[in-house]
Amino acid sequence: MEIQKIEHIGIAVKDLNKSIKFYEDVLGLKCYKIEEIKNQKVKTAFFKVGDTKIELLESTDNEGPIGKFIEKRGEGLHHIAFGVDNLKSSLSELFDKNIKLIDVEPKEGADDLNIVFIQPKATNGVLTELCETKK
Amino acid sequence: MEIQKIEHIGIAVKDLNKSIKFYEDVLGLKCYKIEEIKNQKVKTAFFKVGDTKIELLESTDNEGPIGKFIEKRGEGLHHIAFGVDNLKSSLSELFDKNIKLIDVEPKEGADDLNIVFIQPKATNGVLTELCETKK
Repeated sequence: MEIQKIEHIGIAVKDLNKSIKFYEDVLGLKCYKIEEIKNQKVKTAFFKVGDTKIELLESTDNEGPIGKFIEKRGEGLHHIAFGVDNLKSSLSELFDKNIKLIDVEPKEGADDLNIVFIQPKATNGVLTELCETKK
Repeated sequence: MEIQKIEHIGIAVKDLNKSIKFYEDVLGLKCYKIEEIKNQKVKTAFFKVGDTKIELLESTDNEGPIGKFIEKRGEGLHHIAFGVDNLKSSLSELFDKNIKLIDVEPKEGADDLNIVFIQPKATNGVLTELCETKK
């Protein structure tokens, strides 16, 4: 598989507006998009940083993945997403190497991406996403 | 402050060699440096990804910061480091904004960087580093 870049870093936050304020007022970054992803029960905010992005994630439902993460571990770094040029062939490679996946088919992510998550057990505890821009 | 890029993402691992193997054999990245940082009680491995890097961190001492992190939370995403062009002036800005810091003066980090950590309490639980390349 050919990883082109870190597409984004996902950060779980309790209060999206408060966190946006920190990233803008203290770190000087600029939020360019707020988007709700209903199937993942999150509201997201995006910041461009170099060739990658920060994605802040606020849960819209305590039973969703971010709600559960914050309940268990608190706010903080949630996942790392690698941009690949061909998500389907990358998935085939992972199957061939017996890497356990959360998603066996690409699903729709935020910010015009198709995404797949690898099981954290396969990646030393790091929730790892592979993604490609929708064509 | 002007953040230029995400300089690196730090990931705490129990077994550096095993994790290097995953990043190389499964994700296709290439480790370009292994470096021990004695003052931080870690051994590190670096991978370039686009304009940023992944830094794997294995503890060399259970009482060091990575040893304690793994004991408390297990392996996983540990910190995010932003590259700035002027670390001293960025530090002054943080002081002026009453942002609590772990380091009040730049210290020596891995891979030819001067670094400063912000208190996670000030950043919604995300251990955040600012860094600049040594001049």
